[in-house]
Amino acid sequence: MMTGDQYRSSLKDGRRIYFRGQRVDDVTTHPTFAQQVDAAAVGYDKIYDPDPNGLSQLMEAPRSIEALRRQTEDEPDLLSGISCTSAMTLLTAADRLDARRPQGADNIRAYVKDIQRRDLRIVECITDAKGDRTLAPAKQADPDAYLRVIERRTDGVVIRGCKLHIAQAPIAHELMVIPTKSMKPDEGDYSIACGVAVDTPGVKIVNAGTLPSDVDRRDYPFADAHFCSHGFVIFDDVFVPNERIFLDGEADLSAAFAHSLGTWTRVRGLARMIDEADIMAGFASLIADANGLEKVAHIREKITDMAIHATVLRALLEAALSNARTLPSGMVAPDELYISTGKWIGASERALMTRHLQDIAGGSLLTAPSRADLDNPETGDLVRKYMVGAAAYDGEYRLKLFHALKDLTVSATGVYRSIASLTAGGGLFAQRVVLRNRYDIGRARRMALESVGMEREG
Amino acid sequence: MMTGDQYRSSLKDGRRIYFRGQRVDDVTTHPTFAQQVDAAAVGYDKIYDPDPNGLSQLMEAPRSIEALRRQTEDEPDLLSGISCTSAMTLLTAADRLDARRPQGADNIRAYVKDIQRRDLRIVECITDAKGDRTLAPAKQADPDAYLRVIERRTDGVVIRGCKLHIAQAPIAHELMVIPTKSMKPDEGDYSIACGVAVDTPGVKIVNAGTLPSDVDRRDYPFADAHFCSHGFVIFDDVFVPNERIFLDGEADLSAAFAHSLGTWTRVRGLARMIDEADIMAGFASLIADANGLEKVAHIREKITDMAIHATVLRALLEAALSNARTLPSGMVAPDELYISTGKWIGASERALMTRHLQDIAGGSLLTAPSRADLDNPETGDLVRKYMVGAAAYDGEYRLKLFHALKDLTVSATGVYRSIASLTAGGGLFAQRVVLRNRYDIGRARRMALESVGMEREG
Amino acid sequence: MMTGDQYRSSLKDGRRIYFRGQRVDDVTTHPTFAQQVDAAAVGYDKIYDPDPNGLSQLMEAPRSIEALRRQTEDEPDLLSGISCTSAMTLLTAADRLDARRPQGADNIRAYVKDIQRRDLRIVECITDAKGDRTLAPAKQADPDAYLRVIERRTDGVVIRGCKLHIAQAPIAHELMVIPTKSMKPDEGDYSIACGVAVDTPGVKIVNAGTLPSDVDRRDYPFADAHFCSHGFVIFDDVFVPNERIFLDGEADLSAAFAHSLGTWTRVRGLARMIDEADIMAGFASLIADANGLEKVAHIREKITDMAIHATVLRALLEAALSNARTLPSGMVAPDELYISTGKWIGASERALMTRHLQDIAGGSLLTAPSRADLDNPETGDLVRKYMVGAAAYDGEYRLKLFHALKDLTVSATGVYRSIASLTAGGGLFAQRVVLRNRYDIGRARRMALESVGMEREG
Amino acid sequence: MMTGDQYRSSLKDGRRIYFRGQRVDDVTTHPTFAQQVDAAAVGYDKIYDPDPNGLSQLMEAPRSIEALRRQTEDEPDLLSGISCTSAMTLLTAADRLDARRPQGADNIRAYVKDIQRRDLRIVECITDAKGDRTLAPAKQADPDAYLRVIERRTDGVVIRGCKLHIAQAPIAHELMVIPTKSMKPDEGDYSIACGVAVDTPGVKIVNAGTLPSDVDRRDYPFADAHFCSHGFVIFDDVFVPNERIFLDGEADLSAAFAHSLGTWTRVRGLARMIDEADIMAGFASLIADANGLEKVAHIREKITDMAIHATVLRALLEAALSNARTLPSGMVAPDELYISTGKWIGASERALMTRHLQDIAGGSLLTAPSRADLDNPETGDLVRKYMVGAAAYDGEYRLKLFHALKDLTVSATGVYRSIASLTAGGGLFAQRVVLRNRYDIGRARRMALESVGMEREG
Repeated sequence: MMTGDQYRSSLKDGRRIYFRGQRVDDVTTHPTFAQQVDAAAVGYDKIYDPDPNGLSQLMEAPRSIEALRRQTEDEPDLLSGISCTSAMTLLTAADRLDARRPQGADNIRAYVKDIQRRDLRIVECITDAKGDRTLAPAKQADPDAYLRVIERRTDGVVIRGCKLHIAQAPIAHELMVIPTKSMKPDEGDYSIACGVAVDTPGVKIVNAGTLPSDVDRRDYPFADAHFCSHGFVIFDDVFVPNERIFLDGEADLSAAFAHSLGTWTRVRGLARMIDEADIMAGFASLIADANGLEKVAHIREKITDMAIHATVLRALLEAALSNARTLPSGMVAPDELYISTGKWIGASERALMTRHLQDIAGGSLLTAPSRADLDNPETGDLVRKYMVGAAAYDGEYRLKLFHALKDLTVSATGVYRSIASLTAGGGLFAQRVVLRNRYDIGRARRMALESVGMEREG
Repeated sequence: MMTGDQYRSSLKDGRRIYFRGQRVDDVTTHPTFAQQVDAAAVGYDKIYDPDPNGLSQLMEAPRSIEALRRQTEDEPDLLSGISCTSAMTLLTAADRLDARRPQGADNIRAYVKDIQRRDLRIVECITDAKGDRTLAPAKQADPDAYLRVIERRTDGVVIRGCKLHIAQAPIAHELMVIPTKSMKPDEGDYSIACGVAVDTPGVKIVNAGTLPSDVDRRDYPFADAHFCSHGFVIFDDVFVPNERIFLDGEADLSAAFAHSLGTWTRVRGLARMIDEADIMAGFASLIADANGLEKVAHIREKITDMAIHATVLRALLEAALSNARTLPSGMVAPDELYISTGKWIGASERALMTRHLQDIAGGSLLTAPSRADLDNPETGDLVRKYMVGAAAYDGEYRLKLFHALKDLTVSATGVYRSIASLTAGGGLFAQRVVLRNRYDIGRARRMALESVGMEREG
Repeated sequence: MMTGDQYRSSLKDGRRIYFRGQRVDDVTTHPTFAQQVDAAAVGYDKIYDPDPNGLSQLMEAPRSIEALRRQTEDEPDLLSGISCTSAMTLLTAADRLDARRPQGADNIRAYVKDIQRRDLRIVECITDAKGDRTLAPAKQADPDAYLRVIERRTDGVVIRGCKLHIAQAPIAHELMVIPTKSMKPDEGDYSIACGVAVDTPGVKIVNAGTLPSDVDRRDYPFADAHFCSHGFVIFDDVFVPNERIFLDGEADLSAAFAHSLGTWTRVRGLARMIDEADIMAGFASLIADANGLEKVAHIREKITDMAIHATVLRALLEAALSNARTLPSGMVAPDELYISTGKWIGASERALMTRHLQDIAGGSLLTAPSRADLDNPETGDLVRKYMVGAAAYDGEYRLKLFHALKDLTVSATGVYRSIASLTAGGGLFAQRVVLRNRYDIGRARRMALESVGMEREG
Repeated sequence: MMTGDQYRSSLKDGRRIYFRGQRVDDVTTHPTFAQQVDAAAVGYDKIYDPDPNGLSQLMEAPRSIEALRRQTEDEPDLLSGISCTSAMTLLTAADRLDARRPQGADNIRAYVKDIQRRDLRIVECITDAKGDRTLAPAKQADPDAYLRVIERRTDGVVIRGCKLHIAQAPIAHELMVIPTKSMKPDEGDYSIACGVAVDTPGVKIVNAGTLPSDVDRRDYPFADAHFCSHGFVIFDDVFVPNERIFLDGEADLSAAFAHSLGTWTRVRGLARMIDEADIMAGFASLIADANGLEKVAHIREKITDMAIHATVLRALLEAALSNARTLPSGMVAPDELYISTGKWIGASERALMTRHLQDIAGGSLLTAPSRADLDNPETGDLVRKYMVGAAAYDGEYRLKLFHALKDLTVSATGVYRSIASLTAGGGLFAQRVVLRNRYDIGRARRMALESVGMEREG
């Protein structure tokens, strides 16, 4: 296993990372990426085992509900979480490949084992560029709108395309490339799943999302710990050797990967949403107190709405865990009906919860002076004096709360998380499609007829 | 234990029941009450055990999560459910009386055992008339606005007052009388909890709620199975002997009963709401099919909303069960945070779910001819002809669905259930107060501060 | 013009009306219909003009915004309102027929003039049985699923089919029969619009919706004034003479009638919804006071929500009137964007407003004893005593309020109105389609581009 | 009147402006403020009249509904709008001062006339620091928590305190200082309203809110045109001469200013919200098209929701204008019920509309590469290639739309506007209080009773 420092060194591998029109020489020192690298390095150190034969438990398939709960709730760092989700996706898909493409299943298990052994981090690459959304992959004006195999060789294949919205790609080692959806029989070239190292020739990652780099970091306490970049990952004719190919051509199996990823990314997303919901309720309560308004009825009701939201999300996770199912391989996976319902509610209600929080905090969330204004002798004491709210707290504490709330709900980082909650694991509508398919409408119809003494439909 | 017929006989005890200005001589034959009696009798027969020493399991305290789940989900009939809730309320309260009023706790346990042995049914009487809601019981213009002890004798007490909204009181044997809320030190006379037989002199029950008695029952298939009357139960100076007194004067313990009832009535209410939510989703799907509209996007989305609603409620019950706690006596009780959140959501969203169902069904829910119009040779075939929707179903089937939906969402019975879901176990706001108190806001505040690296409040 | 008594006499014309499997001999005396006849008769007397050459102003096309406002807001009675809507529909459609079928336009104007002269009442018959909703009229298994011409003679046509959800058909004189939607070129036989007298041979009206006839009417104060039956109107081969034919075969004009009806039925529906919204806010305030709870924060907020709802609806009507447009004939018609938006909001929010009202009132809305229980000496004084809430009001007043609320929100009449608000003038989705088509999305797109300095799309 | 250049020069007056801990020497050249100065200068040039006796019409009181509509809808620039709102506030308050403090009314009218003559810009300073919100101004631990008179001299007064959330204060000439709420009799020192020039000794303005200054401005097309800073305006013992004092000590009149400001700031805010709502609907339609998804049902419905939102807001403004009232002075003011209802809905629904827009756009709103990545030859063509959506548009156009949407909904500027919509003119709850007070609940109660034939309350 690697230490944080070994991880840092491992990123200096010639990868082609771009940001705001420039190539990034070294992600470990670049202002936009260094902080993310640091957070991931802390995660490495947190679970480091010096045993030379040590195998990272991070990507071990859970074999009990309790193991599943631990894996879902305890996340050493953001990149570790994504890596775990990716590994679980592959292992779940392997179960479904066994009959039809056993070599692919074997490749997956060997690949995951190798990653565990080398203690690497892997991110998922699923969403294609997609071109015209109304056309199938094979019908696009540009055949590369969905990633595809453009050449087959005896020792492997060459792929071309682009994968969007890839969180933390520039600081990972491996890319899990999988089809974005179910492919049709004539879309065999698009039915490709494989593992690609980030530093493979032809891989270029253009990044979006940044902390403002010219600001006082004290004013952005949330971003400091939670910032995440997103990559536009281009596969500009990349060679993939046979042993890293999991699927190639079996269109009927192409949806297995997206389906598996959906389950694992949503359960993790739901666990994070619950934390966020509690954190937002907590901040609402803290700032209401600091403003001296905690007893005002409409504020108390808004905090209650936030508590309800957090409780509903937690119940859905609880139900997904207590109703988990065991796969043929013995792996335990969460119930998809509850998970997708949770993801839907979490994403759809977040905007309202944010509004509550901002409404409770009031305008100073927007207009509070900066920490540097406290340092300036011409303004510092005056700002402190006038930022005092409830007598129990000083002006600086209240100022810090406003900065935290601004960063959580207004700054790019905070809002990025809000949008990510909408779009990760599929947009709002995708959650509805999944949960609709999982809900047992046949049973509901039978119950309905029975309630009025009708024996059968028709 | 009693059979259904023995139960019927047991109701002919001279009880004073009123309906629409008339005294009801015999509830087992009166058009408004007979059907409820029948439903309760079916429940008796369903669980009848001929063993002469048989003890009804209906009111046995659950000692495991599984027993709690069974008790919550399996209900022989409506009156049995209410009886079970009442018994659980008393037994839970007994645990809290042990230290302060051991005699009351003993009386409770003996009373419940006796009811089990005699296989009686008991309903809860909690809500007082209340008079001016802004005034405490002891401050009312009419001191009887809250039920109270008006005389203390050596062998018992005399009580006066009125309890409102008492479901199925006219067909039960016993009334569990408990304080409606926490009483203050000077409200000892209002701190009375006791058991009163329905046929005790001074008890008068004025009822509301009825099936239209002049209609073709085939047009009301839902009401037929689910109708429930509500009593306005007057205690016009009723004597209660000492062994039936559970609490008398200990104002500080007065809230224990209401609190216990809240938990048990809400968990049962939540289980019923889940059934109803599934039934409503089922009907939505059935009528959409019968109309030939099941593929229309906005209809599919409305059914999905209904599936989400049912799933959220079920998750909250699942979480309440899997997080159940064990009381000192070994009794297992559901988690109150999840239960009250579930009750709140179930009650607050029901109006929208009903709207979805009515909107999907369309105007014929309102305007469909009656079953008798099918029988009339002048109109029958024409009605059948024009009630055909999707070709797979005949006009009569579709007509029956419309009748079911009208009865479920429009007729007095259906709407009564809808309002009962709002008001039973406390109104919407009461649920919020409970859940707010159960939500761990302190933990949320700590999580909030930690997320931005602040060490403590202030 | 006719007096109320003359109107009553005019209904004894041998019409074939059915109810609960029986033919109704005389609607003016039948318990289900007499009350509606009475209400309509009051409307006749209200606007009666003894001048023998008098012409009813009821159906005069408005020529100014002020006339439009008066027509919309002042309604002598329910049947008059429907008659006015029908006449406006025909006159608006006439403007669109002038070029393509001038004879139809002339027939319409002569027909309306004749109705005015004879002072008749006319109801709209639009919605067909529709059969399988996924199939066009000409593709149905039963060709009569949409009303059609089955025979053409030199002096007229014979029509067959069924029109659903026809409010007050059994107490009107004339049926305005129009196509339910736009017809395709091969659906000429379905492109029929005409006027049919209620007593024409072949017309049979099967009715739904009733007051419970066996109850004390004092307990149903709202239904007493507002009850409305709905007819299933069968055209079992009905002859229509040429001068009563407005459209026959011009499929491209078939939508003109439905479109016109939509505008006029929605504007009237919106005006009624505003009244209802104010009435519901008023009741909420009255019962909160009677319960002594008018100062409780969550109740005040619910009443505020009801005030907002009423205000939004009123603003939409105000905007529809102040932005009314003048048609070629000089007739002034309301703006359709605002009207359909108002109708959508009114219908979609009504369920929530009803929930607020019920939640504020509490369980006694459901369980209050009846007026007859007040008359019974065994219970009357006790019911009065325990129904007292805030000291300023007696128990009987509060009981009456509960009865009014039950009737408004629980009884068949109240709930019928609620569903009618969903379905009249098209369901919720239909409103969205109309308003979407009326919203100027092109202007919005230009504003969007301009806001970021982009010059054009693409 | 001044030109834009004269305005720029006028700002070099030694004002004490602070930003991020530094004093700003010249707002016209500082990166955070220059752009706002430029926008205001464009506004000056737009309405410049070279007539040396010219009087700015910007702050002329409207005397007709049409004039009120023009003033509300046409805004040369943001600072002009705020200035107009401030002037209207003063003139409306003057009407209420005439009887009780005629000198104050005269001072106001002379002050506004002078500002018009000198063509200055004035911003409103209302919100105080407030300290502990549960305590009245005179009861605070720090008596300066609300701005107050600390010294009275023969020629004027000295004031001390702080006003929060002051939009564009650093680029205006004058500060309109008014009490934040109704004061009590013993709060005469807090009952102070006056005009203060920005460059008056003792005035210090600490600013928050900034464009990221180190980014490519092409990626922020919205902020570029719409950015607005917010000042924390400290009055550190500022002398105000008598002729600039409008109110001093008349506690009973203190609310007149806040009330007037509420009306004028809300009507302008509502007009801006309508524009924003249309712009958001327009962007939703544009990006749906560019993604090729404009026909997908759930996307069409979300755009319809946005159209409904814009239409409701517009109807409320229309109703507020058509129901405007004329004040004693002949000034025409909008109806407050409709305005505050509009403000409430606009603010409360904005979060949902933003969610719709983000959900329709999808993840690229978050992760689209920057404009500079297009310029980089290593990535430019690849980004262009993979950003293509619907075939009708090129990748660069779609990229620009994503940048616009990110800037509108994610960047600091966009989100600042969202929060400003919540907090400006009072938070959500404040709108409810205003509209509740304006709604005629007495009329609603009378309508309710009448609907069930009850003659009177009680």
